[in-house]
Amino acid sequence: MPQTDIDALIEFLRFASISTDSAFAGQVNECADWLVDRLERGGLDVEKYATARHPVVVAKNAQKAGRKTVMIYGHYDVQPVDPLELWDHPPFEPHIDGDRIFARGSTDNKGQLLAHLLGVEKTLAANKDLPVNLIFLFEGEEEIGSPNLEPFLNEHRDSLACDVVAVSDTGMVAPGLPTFTYGLRGIACMEITLHGPTSDLHSGIYGGAVANPATAVAQLAGSLHNVTNGRVIVDGFYDRVTPLEKWESKAWNELPLGDAEMKELTGATSLYGEEGYTTLERTWGRPTAEVNGIGGGYQGEGSKTVIPAESMLKLSFRLVPDQEPGEILALVRKHLAARCPKGIQLDITEGHDGKPYKVDPHCDFGKAAQSALETTFGKPAALIREGGSIPIVQAFKDVLEADTLLLGLALPDCRAHAPNENFSLENFAKGIQLNQHLLAAL
Amino acid sequence: MPQTDIDALIEFLRFASISTDSAFAGQVNECADWLVDRLERGGLDVEKYATARHPVVVAKNAQKAGRKTVMIYGHYDVQPVDPLELWDHPPFEPHIDGDRIFARGSTDNKGQLLAHLLGVEKTLAANKDLPVNLIFLFEGEEEIGSPNLEPFLNEHRDSLACDVVAVSDTGMVAPGLPTFTYGLRGIACMEITLHGPTSDLHSGIYGGAVANPATAVAQLAGSLHNVTNGRVIVDGFYDRVTPLEKWESKAWNELPLGDAEMKELTGATSLYGEEGYTTLERTWGRPTAEVNGIGGGYQGEGSKTVIPAESMLKLSFRLVPDQEPGEILALVRKHLAARCPKGIQLDITEGHDGKPYKVDPHCDFGKAAQSALETTFGKPAALIREGGSIPIVQAFKDVLEADTLLLGLALPDCRAHAPNENFSLENFAKGIQLNQHLLAAL
Repeated sequence: MPQTDIDALIEFLRFASISTDSAFAGQVNECADWLVDRLERGGLDVEKYATARHPVVVAKNAQKAGRKTVMIYGHYDVQPVDPLELWDHPPFEPHIDGDRIFARGSTDNKGQLLAHLLGVEKTLAANKDLPVNLIFLFEGEEEIGSPNLEPFLNEHRDSLACDVVAVSDTGMVAPGLPTFTYGLRGIACMEITLHGPTSDLHSGIYGGAVANPATAVAQLAGSLHNVTNGRVIVDGFYDRVTPLEKWESKAWNELPLGDAEMKELTGATSLYGEEGYTTLERTWGRPTAEVNGIGGGYQGEGSKTVIPAESMLKLSFRLVPDQEPGEILALVRKHLAARCPKGIQLDITEGHDGKPYKVDPHCDFGKAAQSALETTFGKPAALIREGGSIPIVQAFKDVLEADTLLLGLALPDCRAHAPNENFSLENFAKGIQLNQHLLAAL
Repeated sequence: MPQTDIDALIEFLRFASISTDSAFAGQVNECADWLVDRLERGGLDVEKYATARHPVVVAKNAQKAGRKTVMIYGHYDVQPVDPLELWDHPPFEPHIDGDRIFARGSTDNKGQLLAHLLGVEKTLAANKDLPVNLIFLFEGEEEIGSPNLEPFLNEHRDSLACDVVAVSDTGMVAPGLPTFTYGLRGIACMEITLHGPTSDLHSGIYGGAVANPATAVAQLAGSLHNVTNGRVIVDGFYDRVTPLEKWESKAWNELPLGDAEMKELTGATSLYGEEGYTTLERTWGRPTAEVNGIGGGYQGEGSKTVIPAESMLKLSFRLVPDQEPGEILALVRKHLAARCPKGIQLDITEGHDGKPYKVDPHCDFGKAAQSALETTFGKPAALIREGGSIPIVQAFKDVLEADTLLLGLALPDCRAHAPNENFSLENFAKGIQLNQHLLAAL
């Protein structure tokens, strides 16, 4: 690939555009300005919009009637770099080793964003036009939950109207295997505090007299599953779950991502989950209840025989179509309240949520995306769902009424969010081609 | 009471004999020297023994054949004083307000120890002899678990041989109500670490693939009880429990310590525990399983959707006759291992333990102690057990083969171990008389 493409990536990666830390707000803004400049020089009409925090950059080609409007979304902000001492090279001084470029944001999401930008630049340079009406939408707040993006979409609903959205911010099942993600799980979070005695009590003197919040939090969290078969036993939890289709199970079974690979990725000595489903079915196509945090009593060294005054619990539920986050939280709330021992007061706060998402991979846009992937990589695309949640995808559906095509280029060992994040230069080159094939296919 | 007795108490309380903090080792030693001096001036033969940490003081009268040998145990070390800012007066500058003297160690245990010492002093001054062979055994390590006392007992087994031990380091049910404690619960502790994936995992990407150590720790801790009836459901847990005797339940029911008082003491909105027993039966006469600490995952502000690599659990079991700590821990170990989900490794460390203790309150020594209490306070003694554990009592039984009479003078609001610890001057005076009546009755 041309050295100028790699130079552009290196320039882009040098900005420490850490969105969560206000000390880096200047770098986030300079990074947005770099994008504006690059997009303008590529021949697009660019607008930079201030938000309550970090700017949104929108760029368009000349919009013509009679052709599809495609939005390509990406984000130019990055995760923090702690722990810095675990990086082999400074995170904002890009380092190339073989096929990989190491830097914070290389995979997530600057490398993938820039591949689209360069693809469009090259097509415009060669043909003076694109086969579609294009809208680039680049935000600087994805790593802090995109707080200003949905309001922005609402405010600019008309000028952002489009037929479909493409996003490259997901993963590939394996190197060289093009991957089309047609579903994401939703999420519903809940924080719980349990209050018992007014202060910590001696567990000898008072043990047996009162309910212990540390015991009660275990009983409540432990009541969510049938341990034997791994199923969630909250009444009604599975009622709205759409069963997996036969073709999905069959396709996932053929992927080079079996239990051996999953053990390797997680380091768990055995896999575990809902009985009757494969590991991929459980993580991509079935809902879960997870304890993300639990705490109560004395957690230091040695022993302290105490009945604590309170305890805490953080739960999250990953949801699949057609579960509703609000409904699931209501069911869980009822489940916990019914099981709370006498003398324990339950304080429940509902946290962030996002609906599950699924697009039919056999719709016209889906087939076009798969065809672009196949042309680029020389083999048919794997059809997968992912277990995580990308709330903006739901916002595109809700506000713009557009489906989202997820064409990720992240490899399993890209170390996104972790030290030594890296991006494959081959995938960078493929990403540029993918953009060109995608716009042609759509 | 004579001002000289109060002056002696004030002198004794001025020593900051905090045994856990080596910065105070000099004060602990000076406090022991003060005792040696006082005991010698009272006419006893005194010996101060160095141990690996703080000294033991032993004092005897002239031992004569044909009469009972009585050991009186006490401790001259005290708890730390943090948080210092919650004290109304400096903890080592004794302050008298009405009937109460406020200082660290006033109730636990200097006031009660000194009452015995002054009682003996007065009897010797008046009669030149005591009605028994007396051994005072005063240690400086009770607040750190008496690590050197059992070795000391073993080493001096012959010279410490006695018929019975008396200890004033327990409580009175209510002011003015003399209290004879004839039983203590035992204890068995366990620390558990659960290991799952090799590092924290994203609960969206991997939720459903592997067992979550934070969920598993809740399931294990939550599996110890039947939540509906409050019973421990570890197989065999109650097998060796001696049922409460009819007279015990009857006597406890008549005490001025009912559910209203227990709610007031704990601040719990409702009491809770094993079905079929009163609150006092549950805390004094029935075993319990308590979670003293539980932790896993993210416990900070906000949410972090993580499957943690590990979690922890601290359990303690309060035991009643004739449960065996080692046996109970083995049953629990088996219970947990059988319920641990696949992919979670369980690391169990057994902690400290102590056997439950019970003396027949209707034995000759018991009756003598109750008679001394009745003579001193002018009403019959309440017969109670306590829910806590005093491991040295078991050491007296094991090494010296002597039962222990627990004749506590601590009031429910004495604030032992807490800021503003205080001792009733009336109980101090009564304690001096109690010593004289006790030695006469024995």
